[in-house]
Amino acid sequence: MSELKVYNSLTREKEIFTPITQGHVGLYVCGPTVSGESHLGHARPYVTFDIVYRWLMHLGYKVRYVRNITDAGHFEEEGRAAEDKISKKAVLEKLEPMELVQKYTNLYHWAMHQLNNLDPTIEPTATGHIVEQIGMIEKIIADGYAYVVNGSVYFDVAKYNADFSKKNEPYGMLSGRVLDEMIATTRDLDNQDEKHNTADFALWKNAPPQHIMHWKSPWGVGFPGWHIECSAMSTKYLGNEFDIHGGGMDLLFPHHECEIAQSNVCNNKIPARYWIHNNMITINGRKMGKSYNNVITLTQLFSGNHPLLQQAYHPMVIRFFILQTHYRSTLDFSNEAL
Amino acid sequence: MSELKVYNSLTREKEIFTPITQGHVGLYVCGPTVSGESHLGHARPYVTFDIVYRWLMHLGYKVRYVRNITDAGHFEEEGRAAEDKISKKAVLEKLEPMELVQKYTNLYHWAMHQLNNLDPTIEPTATGHIVEQIGMIEKIIADGYAYVVNGSVYFDVAKYNADFSKKNEPYGMLSGRVLDEMIATTRDLDNQDEKHNTADFALWKNAPPQHIMHWKSPWGVGFPGWHIECSAMSTKYLGNEFDIHGGGMDLLFPHHECEIAQSNVCNNKIPARYWIHNNMITINGRKMGKSYNNVITLTQLFSGNHPLLQQAYHPMVIRFFILQTHYRSTLDFSNEAL
Repeated sequence: MSELKVYNSLTREKEIFTPITQGHVGLYVCGPTVSGESHLGHARPYVTFDIVYRWLMHLGYKVRYVRNITDAGHFEEEGRAAEDKISKKAVLEKLEPMELVQKYTNLYHWAMHQLNNLDPTIEPTATGHIVEQIGMIEKIIADGYAYVVNGSVYFDVAKYNADFSKKNEPYGMLSGRVLDEMIATTRDLDNQDEKHNTADFALWKNAPPQHIMHWKSPWGVGFPGWHIECSAMSTKYLGNEFDIHGGGMDLLFPHHECEIAQSNVCNNKIPARYWIHNNMITINGRKMGKSYNNVITLTQLFSGNHPLLQQAYHPMVIRFFILQTHYRSTLDFSNEAL
Repeated sequence: MSELKVYNSLTREKEIFTPITQGHVGLYVCGPTVSGESHLGHARPYVTFDIVYRWLMHLGYKVRYVRNITDAGHFEEEGRAAEDKISKKAVLEKLEPMELVQKYTNLYHWAMHQLNNLDPTIEPTATGHIVEQIGMIEKIIADGYAYVVNGSVYFDVAKYNADFSKKNEPYGMLSGRVLDEMIATTRDLDNQDEKHNTADFALWKNAPPQHIMHWKSPWGVGFPGWHIECSAMSTKYLGNEFDIHGGGMDLLFPHHECEIAQSNVCNNKIPARYWIHNNMITINGRKMGKSYNNVITLTQLFSGNHPLLQQAYHPMVIRFFILQTHYRSTLDFSNEAL
């Protein structure tokens, strides 16, 4: 019998997929932040969800596959004032931020085609949906779940949690985290003083004078938070409730947890029914990261031009290698394994 | 001697190109409206300006080449109420407008690569710059050169012409048209009753209920006019005054004339110093047009799958053919000529 059976991160159970609207599927997958080149870690979710997309089409569904491009709002997760990754990298590369975005979006598209991933049906950008993000933030403020401080807007996680726990929809329902514990342990990321609570997150950030990407808003000149873009774009193109939300496991918290909270306030719905997360890639047994000097970009992988690589690997070899391991298991990458 | 000598549509003279900032060039070229497949008529400007772009780089300039995607606001030029081409086609193809946009943007990119055109350094979209367009419209209204009627905003061409003629910058300075004659002869395009004057053009249109693409604005829900997008995007990425503005000769009036007026009000500058326009393509001696049944898309051209084609033509043959004729002459396309 042809069907899709998936592990749903939201219910923590394997479930047989049934669509909201017969014959149609709305699928949202978090796309890349185009502040740099796509690396091996980016290959896995897009190959994984390419298979989900193809399988759904094979089952006869008409699929609207939305995969965004984050070209603004993804903060550097450091202890200083919020600065988004695009702006920071643009200064380093001496490019207008949108030149940087174009450069890495083009490279990303090239790599996706090399890996034989089908294009999504809609590929919206964060900067292309500032109006919609502002609209959602206005609604969240009006409903009392966000507050404005010095031209920035923060989501009030404690109030959300208190109210929505009554509906059995606490903040943490996806990740299983408990708010009280988070408050005690959260590292603070940006302008702690402005937040009522360390677990609160930015919906809109006031733009400091040196910030080159900014837009006019009801709260002054600034830029949107990372989480709100996905809520705005998934709502716009897939509606208040859609079928499948996918992404890497690293996005489950806080990104997807925040998406649920924002969309739930605005639309009175948990945005997606099925939440699918692929596991991470390790390299020679270690987590990939700048500090380990083991970030291999896709152009390096396809050309063999990296100290950790013994040879070039054809994109189809990489695709096959990724698909040999179950998407919910970690996948260790090494020259030997390949 | 290596230089660029161009015919400047603005001065109606051949001039030696000198940049505003030594070593740098800002180049803006009007991109396609992605409501349908690119056709032979689209190939010519993009091949032409690809040569300009390559030549400028060959001369050692660092070029910022901005070529937009019109994914909203391009009105159907018919006698009925304004409806943009994307929305209309989306209904026909039973697609969400942004699915339609994605489909034809992907096809356009594919065709541009087939023709060996380099990617622009920034490829902004109209829907991605709603905030900036609204900002410019607010400024034009504040300065007294636009008026609001029933949620739509129109540019006051007569007032602009009266005031800016004193600076020797009349409406018509690019095209050589005279406003009084235009008023007498202009076909009216949309909601004539709302306009003070037939030559006025829409900066923002109130969205009728059936219009599926719309955004919130200070004037209510609506969508931007076509001309304002290019003014907003060229200003954002190239500044108040940049070097070269290019496009097909069919865009010279009204599109580029309107761009000059809008930007001049907002920035107190004629936006570009050099205006370069390529001439049109004819097919077997006739203008290309739906009514002549001679619109050949690029996929048809490369595959030979069109009643007017005797064979498939390789994209490099098309590129060579386009470049054999001077860009300011009409180019007649026929199987024999190819």
